[in-house]
Amino acid sequence: MISTEKKIDIYLLSFLTNVYLRSVIKIVIIGSGNIAYHLCSALQNKEGVSIVQRYRRHSKNDLKFDENIEVTGQLNNLAKADLYIIAVADDVITQVSLELNIKNGLVVHTSGSRSIEDLKCQTCKGVFYPVQTFSMDKIIDFKEVPIAIEAENDNDLNLLSTLAHQLSPKVHLVNSEQRQKLHISAVFAHNFSNHMYTIAKELCDQYNIDFSILYPLIDESVSKFKILGPKAAQTGPARRHDLSIIKKHIDQLNNSKKNIYIELSNSILKYYNH
Amino acid sequence: MISTEKKIDIYLLSFLTNVYLRSVIKIVIIGSGNIAYHLCSALQNKEGVSIVQRYRRHSKNDLKFDENIEVTGQLNNLAKADLYIIAVADDVITQVSLELNIKNGLVVHTSGSRSIEDLKCQTCKGVFYPVQTFSMDKIIDFKEVPIAIEAENDNDLNLLSTLAHQLSPKVHLVNSEQRQKLHISAVFAHNFSNHMYTIAKELCDQYNIDFSILYPLIDESVSKFKILGPKAAQTGPARRHDLSIIKKHIDQLNNSKKNIYIELSNSILKYYNH
Repeated sequence: MISTEKKIDIYLLSFLTNVYLRSVIKIVIIGSGNIAYHLCSALQNKEGVSIVQRYRRHSKNDLKFDENIEVTGQLNNLAKADLYIIAVADDVITQVSLELNIKNGLVVHTSGSRSIEDLKCQTCKGVFYPVQTFSMDKIIDFKEVPIAIEAENDNDLNLLSTLAHQLSPKVHLVNSEQRQKLHISAVFAHNFSNHMYTIAKELCDQYNIDFSILYPLIDESVSKFKILGPKAAQTGPARRHDLSIIKKHIDQLNNSKKNIYIELSNSILKYYNH
Repeated sequence: MISTEKKIDIYLLSFLTNVYLRSVIKIVIIGSGNIAYHLCSALQNKEGVSIVQRYRRHSKNDLKFDENIEVTGQLNNLAKADLYIIAVADDVITQVSLELNIKNGLVVHTSGSRSIEDLKCQTCKGVFYPVQTFSMDKIIDFKEVPIAIEAENDNDLNLLSTLAHQLSPKVHLVNSEQRQKLHISAVFAHNFSNHMYTIAKELCDQYNIDFSILYPLIDESVSKFKILGPKAAQTGPARRHDLSIIKKHIDQLNNSKKNIYIELSNSILKYYNH
């Protein structure tokens, strides 16, 4: 995704010029959900970064945020900043960007599924997408979080890259089209695989089997595909074309579990040219 | 899966009587594949265990096995032992068990998908199923491997439990019906989730995106479902009933990827009562 030139660019931008680290990046964070909270916590004490304000519609999560950060409920009256991070639900990003009453500074959203064009503000736009799942009550080590950034010009890319590198060494230039595909990819790798665990647990519960018996297998599965690649790491009845076991399994399942078993087994059989 | 009485039983059997540890469990291992190899390696230097012989049809993997273990290619002429572990491909377990020419000792297979009844030998039967995926060239820490055991009587269960505890503290009594369900469950949790990674990687490759960007998300996903349970840990477009994103994703997929996306999204929508 990052060409060699772009890679050199981004290193030059962040490590040589360091223009934004010599001054301070002033940030307003918009939103009070999981991402807003984790970004506030992670950025707050970083050198060269100052969260000058945060906006939230309602005070529900106020106690969770650091009380030292200035809070506002007025979207059309935000503090002056270099960067406005819109960390709200995907379906209100455009609406929030329309309501912003700012003339200067860079506005970014944090969404994997939305284009940079979904921002309808009058100033420069970008994307700052931490590729991770966040919950309020689970600490995240941001050093391990890849951050996908996009901007309309090199200056803004520089600012986002500098900021992202303050959080994590894993900074990637990803344009809106790539990010959409990355998001679909994440649905398979993250959401759908979790649904596989849900079905697996249901089956175990149904027959009074402790689901945690499968934890080491699941761990090994993840560790293995990282070494071999998932295609080569594939095992199981469909991979070895064991139609008698597949049939036996299908006979024991019903409804949507049966359909999923058939759909995925067919896909694996086809994928490995059986 | 293990009732309290059974739990007490199994502890009493393995930690109090220790009848098999006072003597030595003599073992013949049948097979030369991944499980046979890892069992040989793991059991070889355990106190109270002696691998008196191993049988293999062909010499292909001989160099990988310890040369100090006696080898035979004659299935009808095995050494005397307390335990014969048949670690061969599922579809030849019955055939191998028929060819055994032994009158004493316990015969077990190591398969998740086969019933204890698939053993057709004339002596006592059991199952010794390590719930893990094995490759020749990847070291496995057996202490982390759950072992599901089954036998026809308490004496044999005691022997298997004693042996299993030599390898791992995670020993479970699992009957043949439960083991079949556990195996289906493993197909979902292990094989199908790996296929999700395969599809995710294909999408990334197609758009020149580094698939490893998703590794921390996948790691967090696995770590999260263990804490919350997979049902509660579910996120994504289908979980939050975001039909517009689902439609957008479906429009960008084709063939089997599209069908899988639809099937799994429908299953999640239905599962969470949307």
